[in-house]
Amino acid sequence: MLVLNGPNLGRLGSREPEVYGSDTLADIGAKLEASVPDDVVIDLRQTDDEGVLIGWIHEAVDRGTPVVLNPAAFTHYSYGLRDAAALLKQAGIPLVEVHLSNPHTRETFRHTSVISGVASGVIAGFGAESYRLAIDWLLRPHG
Amino acid sequence: MLVLNGPNLGRLGSREPEVYGSDTLADIGAKLEASVPDDVVIDLRQTDDEGVLIGWIHEAVDRGTPVVLNPAAFTHYSYGLRDAAALLKQAGIPLVEVHLSNPHTRETFRHTSVISGVASGVIAGFGAESYRLAIDWLLRPHG
Amino acid sequence: MLVLNGPNLGRLGSREPEVYGSDTLADIGAKLEASVPDDVVIDLRQTDDEGVLIGWIHEAVDRGTPVVLNPAAFTHYSYGLRDAAALLKQAGIPLVEVHLSNPHTRETFRHTSVISGVASGVIAGFGAESYRLAIDWLLRPHG
Amino acid sequence: MLVLNGPNLGRLGSREPEVYGSDTLADIGAKLEASVPDDVVIDLRQTDDEGVLIGWIHEAVDRGTPVVLNPAAFTHYSYGLRDAAALLKQAGIPLVEVHLSNPHTRETFRHTSVISGVASGVIAGFGAESYRLAIDWLLRPHG
Amino acid sequence: MLVLNGPNLGRLGSREPEVYGSDTLADIGAKLEASVPDDVVIDLRQTDDEGVLIGWIHEAVDRGTPVVLNPAAFTHYSYGLRDAAALLKQAGIPLVEVHLSNPHTRETFRHTSVISGVASGVIAGFGAESYRLAIDWLLRPHG
Amino acid sequence: MLVLNGPNLGRLGSREPEVYGSDTLADIGAKLEASVPDDVVIDLRQTDDEGVLIGWIHEAVDRGTPVVLNPAAFTHYSYGLRDAAALLKQAGIPLVEVHLSNPHTRETFRHTSVISGVASGVIAGFGAESYRLAIDWLLRPHG
Amino acid sequence: MLVLNGPNLGRLGSREPEVYGSDTLADIGAKLEASVPDDVVIDLRQTDDEGVLIGWIHEAVDRGTPVVLNPAAFTHYSYGLRDAAALLKQAGIPLVEVHLSNPHTRETFRHTSVISGVASGVIAGFGAESYRLAIDWLLRPHG
Amino acid sequence: MLVLNGPNLGRLGSREPEVYGSDTLADIGAKLEASVPDDVVIDLRQTDDEGVLIGWIHEAVDRGTPVVLNPAAFTHYSYGLRDAAALLKQAGIPLVEVHLSNPHTRETFRHTSVISGVASGVIAGFGAESYRLAIDWLLRPHG
Amino acid sequence: MLVLNGPNLGRLGSREPEVYGSDTLADIGAKLEASVPDDVVIDLRQTDDEGVLIGWIHEAVDRGTPVVLNPAAFTHYSYGLRDAAALLKQAGIPLVEVHLSNPHTRETFRHTSVISGVASGVIAGFGAESYRLAIDWLLRPHG
Amino acid sequence: MLVLNGPNLGRLGSREPEVYGSDTLADIGAKLEASVPDDVVIDLRQTDDEGVLIGWIHEAVDRGTPVVLNPAAFTHYSYGLRDAAALLKQAGIPLVEVHLSNPHTRETFRHTSVISGVASGVIAGFGAESYRLAIDWLLRPHG
Amino acid sequence: MLVLNGPNLGRLGSREPEVYGSDTLADIGAKLEASVPDDVVIDLRQTDDEGVLIGWIHEAVDRGTPVVLNPAAFTHYSYGLRDAAALLKQAGIPLVEVHLSNPHTRETFRHTSVISGVASGVIAGFGAESYRLAIDWLLRPHG
Amino acid sequence: MLVLNGPNLGRLGSREPEVYGSDTLADIGAKLEASVPDDVVIDLRQTDDEGVLIGWIHEAVDRGTPVVLNPAAFTHYSYGLRDAAALLKQAGIPLVEVHLSNPHTRETFRHTSVISGVASGVIAGFGAESYRLAIDWLLRPHG
Repeated sequence: MLVLNGPNLGRLGSREPEVYGSDTLADIGAKLEASVPDDVVIDLRQTDDEGVLIGWIHEAVDRGTPVVLNPAAFTHYSYGLRDAAALLKQAGIPLVEVHLSNPHTRETFRHTSVISGVASGVIAGFGAESYRLAIDWLLRPHG
Repeated sequence: MLVLNGPNLGRLGSREPEVYGSDTLADIGAKLEASVPDDVVIDLRQTDDEGVLIGWIHEAVDRGTPVVLNPAAFTHYSYGLRDAAALLKQAGIPLVEVHLSNPHTRETFRHTSVISGVASGVIAGFGAESYRLAIDWLLRPHG
Repeated sequence: MLVLNGPNLGRLGSREPEVYGSDTLADIGAKLEASVPDDVVIDLRQTDDEGVLIGWIHEAVDRGTPVVLNPAAFTHYSYGLRDAAALLKQAGIPLVEVHLSNPHTRETFRHTSVISGVASGVIAGFGAESYRLAIDWLLRPHG
Repeated sequence: MLVLNGPNLGRLGSREPEVYGSDTLADIGAKLEASVPDDVVIDLRQTDDEGVLIGWIHEAVDRGTPVVLNPAAFTHYSYGLRDAAALLKQAGIPLVEVHLSNPHTRETFRHTSVISGVASGVIAGFGAESYRLAIDWLLRPHG
Repeated sequence: MLVLNGPNLGRLGSREPEVYGSDTLADIGAKLEASVPDDVVIDLRQTDDEGVLIGWIHEAVDRGTPVVLNPAAFTHYSYGLRDAAALLKQAGIPLVEVHLSNPHTRETFRHTSVISGVASGVIAGFGAESYRLAIDWLLRPHG
Repeated sequence: MLVLNGPNLGRLGSREPEVYGSDTLADIGAKLEASVPDDVVIDLRQTDDEGVLIGWIHEAVDRGTPVVLNPAAFTHYSYGLRDAAALLKQAGIPLVEVHLSNPHTRETFRHTSVISGVASGVIAGFGAESYRLAIDWLLRPHG
Repeated sequence: MLVLNGPNLGRLGSREPEVYGSDTLADIGAKLEASVPDDVVIDLRQTDDEGVLIGWIHEAVDRGTPVVLNPAAFTHYSYGLRDAAALLKQAGIPLVEVHLSNPHTRETFRHTSVISGVASGVIAGFGAESYRLAIDWLLRPHG
Repeated sequence: MLVLNGPNLGRLGSREPEVYGSDTLADIGAKLEASVPDDVVIDLRQTDDEGVLIGWIHEAVDRGTPVVLNPAAFTHYSYGLRDAAALLKQAGIPLVEVHLSNPHTRETFRHTSVISGVASGVIAGFGAESYRLAIDWLLRPHG
Repeated sequence: MLVLNGPNLGRLGSREPEVYGSDTLADIGAKLEASVPDDVVIDLRQTDDEGVLIGWIHEAVDRGTPVVLNPAAFTHYSYGLRDAAALLKQAGIPLVEVHLSNPHTRETFRHTSVISGVASGVIAGFGAESYRLAIDWLLRPHG
Repeated sequence: MLVLNGPNLGRLGSREPEVYGSDTLADIGAKLEASVPDDVVIDLRQTDDEGVLIGWIHEAVDRGTPVVLNPAAFTHYSYGLRDAAALLKQAGIPLVEVHLSNPHTRETFRHTSVISGVASGVIAGFGAESYRLAIDWLLRPHG
Repeated sequence: MLVLNGPNLGRLGSREPEVYGSDTLADIGAKLEASVPDDVVIDLRQTDDEGVLIGWIHEAVDRGTPVVLNPAAFTHYSYGLRDAAALLKQAGIPLVEVHLSNPHTRETFRHTSVISGVASGVIAGFGAESYRLAIDWLLRPHG
Repeated sequence: MLVLNGPNLGRLGSREPEVYGSDTLADIGAKLEASVPDDVVIDLRQTDDEGVLIGWIHEAVDRGTPVVLNPAAFTHYSYGLRDAAALLKQAGIPLVEVHLSNPHTRETFRHTSVISGVASGVIAGFGAESYRLAIDWLLRPHG
């Protein structure tokens, strides 16, 4: 399972901890690992680079791997990422868009997501738990 | 735990099953009951009436009960419901906004939520699982 | 046949007679009764309550009854009513949206209908005749 | 009685029959003739030319003839047609705007009518029956 | 004299006291009673239900009673309430729209009132004093 | 000198005389003839047809004739007319846009002119005098 | 107590008396004087000049004097006046924005106030009584 | 006759001569004087101050003097000036809004006039001739 | 093959040659003739009349002829032309929208095309070559 | 000649073949090679990375090479790419923007191009033929 | 060198010191004097009056003096000031727009400047240092 | 001190020299070096890659280094860069946004900055001097 993270999420833990919590991304990864069965592999990655993130989604398409995606700031403008995510949808591979904070309680520009329209579902506002819930769902059978 | 449902959700099962699934609201309630520990009570209610829904949230405020809320069409215009939900926020009681379908894949008017800005978090697009994930989160300790 | 009327229409006759005419809703009902064959039952109802109006449409869905709907002010914001009306559309039951006055000759906010998009058709501007024409159409065979 | 039709309506029958039905405009005219008393003359005309359509409305003003108008695409931009229609209103001659399909179920640009603001009333979504209902109303006494 | 209050105003005293003050609605009613002559009856009511509120305004129309209205969240979307309020205007019965807080110092959606356009006047921002000033004005002769 | 008039201006005299005055277009033409020197020819024309009006402007371009243009309703949407008028500008031939009434005191859609951006100048609100003033200016030398 | 009035309010009495009433500003001042205790001084001023009005508010800041402000047309665009009014707010000195008429029943541009966001409260629509109510409130103790 | 000029028009002659021409305002005044009968007095004034300009219009109201007004930049935002101009309209005194250049050929913000809605008419784009044409009209009888 | 041209394109060669080039429409026609095989007939037509242009498209529908369309100014507002073009689409007959200049480098109103949504494809900015490329494509087999 | 392709175009063949066709980008390259004279080199490249794409355009500027650019999703937001493309324009090197599908028949966000304003021309909707037509034009002499 | 300051800047020191700092305008003037060579004269002025500020800019035009302008609230609406500033630009005299605070971190209305479009440059957010940097640049040679 | 430059700035000197000047970025760097004390190190970098630029800002956060940032085209859409810049703000490290040209004198899309809201201040329009002024400020003590 791919857990992909967009720009600035490598700074978690120190970035506005009152908004994003004090866990680093590695902490979150460790918690996720601990919460899933042993045979489930959590491949957690982060990049500040749009092209790299698009490439990882292509990889998921090729391998048929479900994706948990926290697009971070790309949420609001990266139609390139949206088009990549649409490839997952076309291939019938689930994609869950997650956010640590609830974007609707923040600046107006964060209220718009160009990704949600091609995601299977959206989970926002639960901190690291947003990831765990997404994985929980992906691990269950669903049509 | 209160699981509150807005207008037309009493029609689930027959309403656009390709969008909302074939479970009735009672089916969903039964599944939720089955998924939680025995000592957790799921109080699932539905109404087409804005005033009644606001009253149920007041009840949650008074009793300190966490709320899972599927506001259905009220999502898009009921500032009355929003003000009620804000009472929960003020009292520090968690509120999770859930949607069966992913509103961003549907008509434009469904892309706007007047509720999200006062919710703890949002879960959308997972069918009945949206409720289960919300309850899962509410049952865990969180600050 | 259900002829459903939204908020403030119980005040017809006294409410802005230069806009809405001097007939009361009961007068309109009597005229409609007189205009249809004896075996056609006109069930004319009025409510100021959104939830009640939604419930009546659910009733029509369950009974397979065609609906004439004057949503009055709900025309402009009640997505709850729209979602109920969409249940009629999904079930293949005709719904005619009617208005006594022509909304496009009045305030700007009356130029927008959130209901029309799920109605079979719209008739506006003919006073009580708007209802009669709607019933006329419903009584004829159509695909 | 003038029944005036705007651009592309001469193509009815072959144009998107799933939207507009399979009747040609001549078929509609024949049905309308059949539905009215013998002494009522239905003068059904069609043009793709804005200037010609405006001229026909001037003719109606001069002769005091009620008008059924399907402005087709002119609905959305022809203020020239609107100004002509306003001459009918000023002269106290009724004008009914009709549409075969329900514009609110189609592209967004079709949701705006520059004609409705000067029409006596609007009937939309009933196929050829939209015309018949309009004529039905025009044949009755009304103030 | 009717003093009508919309959704969530029954929670006054505990709802955001830094915005709305610590008086309950009953406290406000008592203060208003104390501030008017003995022969003036203050009939203070509150509801979370749009239909009920509309009905109370109809009652005021029938009885010719002036109204002080705090529409709360309905201020921003209830055209049904607006149409009811317009009945007062048509009947020449004064209606004063009041707000405890000054909506223009709060969220953007609170800057729009669909009620003000049919009110005699508006008083906002003075806490419970907004009501007292409204009643003060209503008790004086005015044309 | 060409004095060109757009749709519905052939109805002057009977069309909303409180807005447009009681002079017919012929009356206006006669008055203009009387107001200019004998050697100035006023070629006053009117059409409801956009294509014809565009053609007349082409004629003016070919003959180098100054134009007084009352575009009437075309003012608000005919980019075809605008492009024709731009040919005059390119050729250095003056074009004065005139209006009988002051569009800014009327409906909002009349506040926008797609013609003004390519006109030499605009004169509006003076009734038939708008034409006379335009001709007065055209008859004087100007750079 | 300063009662400050913006542009064109010196014309009261003759300016649209059906909107603003027939009292001159001096008449209003006299009535206000008569309505307050003898030891309250009403310093009523009027200016058409934005800079002068800003200066008077600075004077109120320096003297700690409460202000009743009818900004008239400045309501809709004078951010300079808004910034001055914000100085009162910062200093904890109350400012009541008043209007003779109810702006929401008039032209659209009058529906926007750039002042309200920094006022203590707003009173509109009561004619000269708007001022009296504002002073009434200012004379009472409030936090 | 008052010929009133707004901000920066005292700089004419040197200000963007390719837009405004090389005449100073005094030159324009002299030409206007030369163009009118001897018994007509042209009182040409200019100010950069909104309050002063409003005052001059009040003077015109009191004296019943027709006004030619070039509001310059005030055209686009001075509702204070608009309210003053409306006093002329209410008093039945003609006001002609003039512009040297044609605002529609310039920046977008110049396409909006808050003054035109209360002017008798508008003349724009003819340089100093805009004034002369306005005076020409004012000197003629008109209803 | 029909090569249809909208308003003002008959003026090519003299109209803004720096934008549109110095070829007349006849020159373009001759070049196109020279560029296609002998058995391909280029039927190049131009009109300033919307109704005529719509009629030519109907002719293409009836004859099954591919169309190259330069809608000129009609691009931006003629929904009548769009509806005609949609008939081609429905009939499976290709339509290529061409422009001599690149509209996106010109005025903002030229950035919107109401035609593109029903065209097979769009070619813009290559002068007369835009036509040649369109014909080149139409002459090749494509699905 | 550089033929540059933006994000996700490396997935052609499998990505929504009903929209983009079943050719891979390599297939398109091969067809283009086959369609040009032997001495023309087609340097076809693809990247998901905005910075790389910008760099390739800089390379074209340095080498004076014409560019065919399919910006894919970057079309809608990459002002960085636009500024690079403007360097080509400044240097007088032609740039043709191409699209496989016709963006105007798809989601609304695809109707906006931030690139077109600095392109020589645009070709959209012809599948792989869009590229061939662009190259065809680039190989001909043009000013 | 003229250092001009708009409305409410005379209140510096006491006005929101957390935003604007605790220096008075006189303090800023003294610091600026101290930071420039002895032969440079800093003529620091402040006014709350738009007309006076416009006049000072005219003075700068006449004397050829560079200007540092803090337009304060006029930034957002004074097209009169903009037109004056454009006179400087036309005359080739530099104008630097300065702001103490960074407007983009404050209310939305402060994000728009009608002055910047005619300024040589903008410096915002550095407190009194904004002025010093502006003067530093003006004292250096630049083309 | 980090001086970071966004896309296409590596082309300075040849890119629109009338807008950006003829200095290359290296020239600017040399001038900046020359203008600061010997012990100040200017680390000037440029990239066309959003991810790289974000990484450099992370480096500044980690090292506590002040940043001069010319975001170039990223100014208008890179919320990823904004979020990185906000990390500087959170850490109390100053960030100055600079622009060579004054964006408000150019295309409309350049009038919006998504970066300014998290910058310490903005300096625009002074060519290479914009950088020098930013560094000047950063080298001084400030709170």
